[in-house]
Amino acid sequence: MQSNTKKKTVVVVGGVAGGMSFAARYRRLNLDDEIIVVDKNPYVSFANCGLPYHISEEIPEREDLIVVSEKTIRDRFRIDVRAEEEVVRIVPEEKKICTETKAGEKKEIAYDILVLSPGAKPIRLDIEGLASHPAVFTLRNIPDLDRIKGALAGTQPKSATVIGGGFIGLEVAESLKNAGLEVAIVQISDHVLPPFDPEMAVFAEKELTDHGVKVLTNNSVEKVEGKKLTLQDGSELESDLLLMSVGVAPETGFLEGSGIELGMKDGIKVDEHYRTSVPEIYAIGDSIIVKHTITGEDVMIALAGPANRQGRQLADMLSGYDHDLSGSLGTSIVRIFDRAFASTGLNESQLEGRNYQPIHLIGKSNAGYFPGSEDILLKLIYDKDSREILGAQAVGKKGVDKRIDVIATAIKAGLRADRLQELELSYSPPYGSAKDIINLAGYFAENVMLGLTDPIQISELADYEKRGHRVIDVRTAKEYERGHIDGAKNVPLDEIRDRLDEFEKDEKYVVHCRSSVRSYNAERILKAEGYHVKNLDGSFVYFAANFPDRIVRD
Amino acid sequence: MQSNTKKKTVVVVGGVAGGMSFAARYRRLNLDDEIIVVDKNPYVSFANCGLPYHISEEIPEREDLIVVSEKTIRDRFRIDVRAEEEVVRIVPEEKKICTETKAGEKKEIAYDILVLSPGAKPIRLDIEGLASHPAVFTLRNIPDLDRIKGALAGTQPKSATVIGGGFIGLEVAESLKNAGLEVAIVQISDHVLPPFDPEMAVFAEKELTDHGVKVLTNNSVEKVEGKKLTLQDGSELESDLLLMSVGVAPETGFLEGSGIELGMKDGIKVDEHYRTSVPEIYAIGDSIIVKHTITGEDVMIALAGPANRQGRQLADMLSGYDHDLSGSLGTSIVRIFDRAFASTGLNESQLEGRNYQPIHLIGKSNAGYFPGSEDILLKLIYDKDSREILGAQAVGKKGVDKRIDVIATAIKAGLRADRLQELELSYSPPYGSAKDIINLAGYFAENVMLGLTDPIQISELADYEKRGHRVIDVRTAKEYERGHIDGAKNVPLDEIRDRLDEFEKDEKYVVHCRSSVRSYNAERILKAEGYHVKNLDGSFVYFAANFPDRIVRD
Repeated sequence: MQSNTKKKTVVVVGGVAGGMSFAARYRRLNLDDEIIVVDKNPYVSFANCGLPYHISEEIPEREDLIVVSEKTIRDRFRIDVRAEEEVVRIVPEEKKICTETKAGEKKEIAYDILVLSPGAKPIRLDIEGLASHPAVFTLRNIPDLDRIKGALAGTQPKSATVIGGGFIGLEVAESLKNAGLEVAIVQISDHVLPPFDPEMAVFAEKELTDHGVKVLTNNSVEKVEGKKLTLQDGSELESDLLLMSVGVAPETGFLEGSGIELGMKDGIKVDEHYRTSVPEIYAIGDSIIVKHTITGEDVMIALAGPANRQGRQLADMLSGYDHDLSGSLGTSIVRIFDRAFASTGLNESQLEGRNYQPIHLIGKSNAGYFPGSEDILLKLIYDKDSREILGAQAVGKKGVDKRIDVIATAIKAGLRADRLQELELSYSPPYGSAKDIINLAGYFAENVMLGLTDPIQISELADYEKRGHRVIDVRTAKEYERGHIDGAKNVPLDEIRDRLDEFEKDEKYVVHCRSSVRSYNAERILKAEGYHVKNLDGSFVYFAANFPDRIVRD
Repeated sequence: MQSNTKKKTVVVVGGVAGGMSFAARYRRLNLDDEIIVVDKNPYVSFANCGLPYHISEEIPEREDLIVVSEKTIRDRFRIDVRAEEEVVRIVPEEKKICTETKAGEKKEIAYDILVLSPGAKPIRLDIEGLASHPAVFTLRNIPDLDRIKGALAGTQPKSATVIGGGFIGLEVAESLKNAGLEVAIVQISDHVLPPFDPEMAVFAEKELTDHGVKVLTNNSVEKVEGKKLTLQDGSELESDLLLMSVGVAPETGFLEGSGIELGMKDGIKVDEHYRTSVPEIYAIGDSIIVKHTITGEDVMIALAGPANRQGRQLADMLSGYDHDLSGSLGTSIVRIFDRAFASTGLNESQLEGRNYQPIHLIGKSNAGYFPGSEDILLKLIYDKDSREILGAQAVGKKGVDKRIDVIATAIKAGLRADRLQELELSYSPPYGSAKDIINLAGYFAENVMLGLTDPIQISELADYEKRGHRVIDVRTAKEYERGHIDGAKNVPLDEIRDRLDEFEKDEKYVVHCRSSVRSYNAERILKAEGYHVKNLDGSFVYFAANFPDRIVRD
């Protein structure tokens, strides 16, 4: 597109994921325009997702976090990078921005097109006495990282408390633990990992606890006195470092007076061409409000992938190549010690009012008989009426990213839940299973749709028991002896046909095994004989992890 | 579906993947019917894909290969398993099959429904003198494996020749090499791994050669004299073991006289309900002719995944639950020592007459700055007119299965090639990249579609050179010195703007770098200046591997 007759000046505010993706793509499409990137921080184009891993030096070199050097950006892309220069005001009527350098110099930059990619900043809670703590940090950029590394090297801290159990909080907690500190995580809600539902997040808490990280849910830091933290439940923690990671808020304060319309959480409102409410001003990245792919509703998603994509799409649009936007899905993953936790789409807390079905599976990363095969736990949520896939969450040591990526692809492409059975995924024993857990999820969904199985959720079991349902554990006697649900009766699957006289037609039953595979077979047998049976979705694996107090040995 | 008034007898011929999946699902849906599984081999429901890995004892126990024991099949599923009983004749007019047991006993079994899942058997080439070799094997089932293991334990062979470089041949070659033998592979065509195009298969040949396996392509064994093999090119090989793995053929000889119609390669013709040409006789698995998902044409696909799916679908259909079949795609993967080779859909040799575009990418398994990140090579083929994804092939040490699975899902769901850029895949530095190689493939495809880049294939370079195109290597001077394409001129990307006087408007150029990323930037710059430029798709990585003779050092 060399059709522009006049050379334009394109000014980009924010030079990380979205802004830099925009600038590089815009340059390739418009060789003659002037591109200026203004960033208040000293580093542009750095690997923000890599920051937590330099705390433990798993990423050994600080330099590894600089994706593209400023020199390359200048020389190769002829982008005028102005680091440590802050935008203080936007004056749309004069098409200019006013900036101030670190040295205090005030400047003005005229623009033809202004692209805002300021990102989102960590929220800082206003805790009583916080200023009295000697080492309070957030982690967003390289200067933040330098401060944390400086504290580790300088005062040799022994303990750290991370406030907030989201992705960044957990990554920092892992990295601090790996760096040798005692670490506690304080999470205000009932579970860590907000994109996950609680019965899945419990596996994250277990992984953290198993590696010596203290997890304090339903709790918060109420008061800080030096290194002493007083929690909401009255307990106290001594903590040399305090890391605040309670979410992010759009960095949009500098837009005050610009006339640019903000929406939820002070995010920037944009239309389907990333246009703000002010002509010639566009916005992308973590600071904008987007449409969710599934619901079409306004959401804010702070992730590098969507930011990069938006930057590129905007460059295309401004160069005459339009895009149909498909919204954002929010696929994400976090490593917590030995396990990956990944999710895509919506969780149950985001689905109120919708007629949805959750199903829980226990499968294998690859052929169970092949050495090194690992368990995978997968939760799939779909719409009971339309069969649309609404979301998925997965946990395991191997192959979790793959399964969530396949489901994220299925969602984007509009594949129905039951059609997951038809996917032909690459199989040989080191890599997969002839019936992959994704296919099994499709089978399971179909069985529910056809009424072949009636799953109930582990959170519902106590209610069913109150209403008189008897719990039947169809695992082997040996498995049962090692631990079973309080009150469950053991009738191993392979004995069930011979012990039908122990069942009553006017009783109601809930069957379970380890992973719901054997109990599904039991359910089919009992139903064929005319008994009233439900199947405990997720079976013993999920139930025992979530209700350890109900597990007994006789 | 307990609506059947009369108890039926369902007879299944073949008790491995398809047959056993059918039988188990049919049982769950029809608790009262009689199910008989007849198999001429001693083992049913074994892990055929795991067989190669027991040769080297990577799968240590032979018992690990038995997926479900015959006892479980009988007790849990009430399936009447008749192993070592061969079907000698089918008599549709009397709805019975005639069988013969290993002991020579002749039997007849009446059926209401007959399901054929006989699979496919290794093709045995008729080589001159073959009978004189003391140890010739094929590998299809556990008795075959026992024979190979017996030979390894007994005669302590030092060398083996594998005839055929398909998946099983390569897996067996790897396993024999890992078991300590000298191994050669003889492949009649110009490359191993038939689902791959030659420029991708070359990486498999390199992996084999790097691990000490001799790869002899465009060659065949013409004569066998004891352990001495004479090849088509006149060379000779001494080989203690001879493993024949030149593909499979449907095991349909026993259908002679049954009236069941066969088609290509003697595969069984079935309709969209797996019905053969004879009423009440159905067929599934490796022995049937299916429709290819993309082309809709007849194909034969011998893979465990589709066989399992077909078995289950047929059980559903016979129980009143219909399925829309979406054909088979043939997604597959093989491990060769440290690398995975996976593919889905069609390769170029299957696309004659179609207006397709191949593109080649070099990317990373996960964030390049994260320790343990590995290269991935990805080839994507799409239809130039419809943008439909036609196929993909990938190679690498990590994350290859994931990328092919995502593309296989995209194909099944009908996602266009350029829309791969929109996929939101799980990203954090240990697992992916903010711009995954899948997204990059979508970007690349879009750039081609928009005319922003003009790729030429490495196989076309010599022709372009003949027609006067100059090759420009835009890597750094250091990279160029370490090895470059014979005749290429070095103009590093970051110097290109200052050296435009070295280019001529009436000349034609082909640019390349290592991975086509820098050369794409060079292409954009040169095109904007009015020069005639093409980009070498796959750049140095693919070219050097495929045309090592053209790589020089000055």
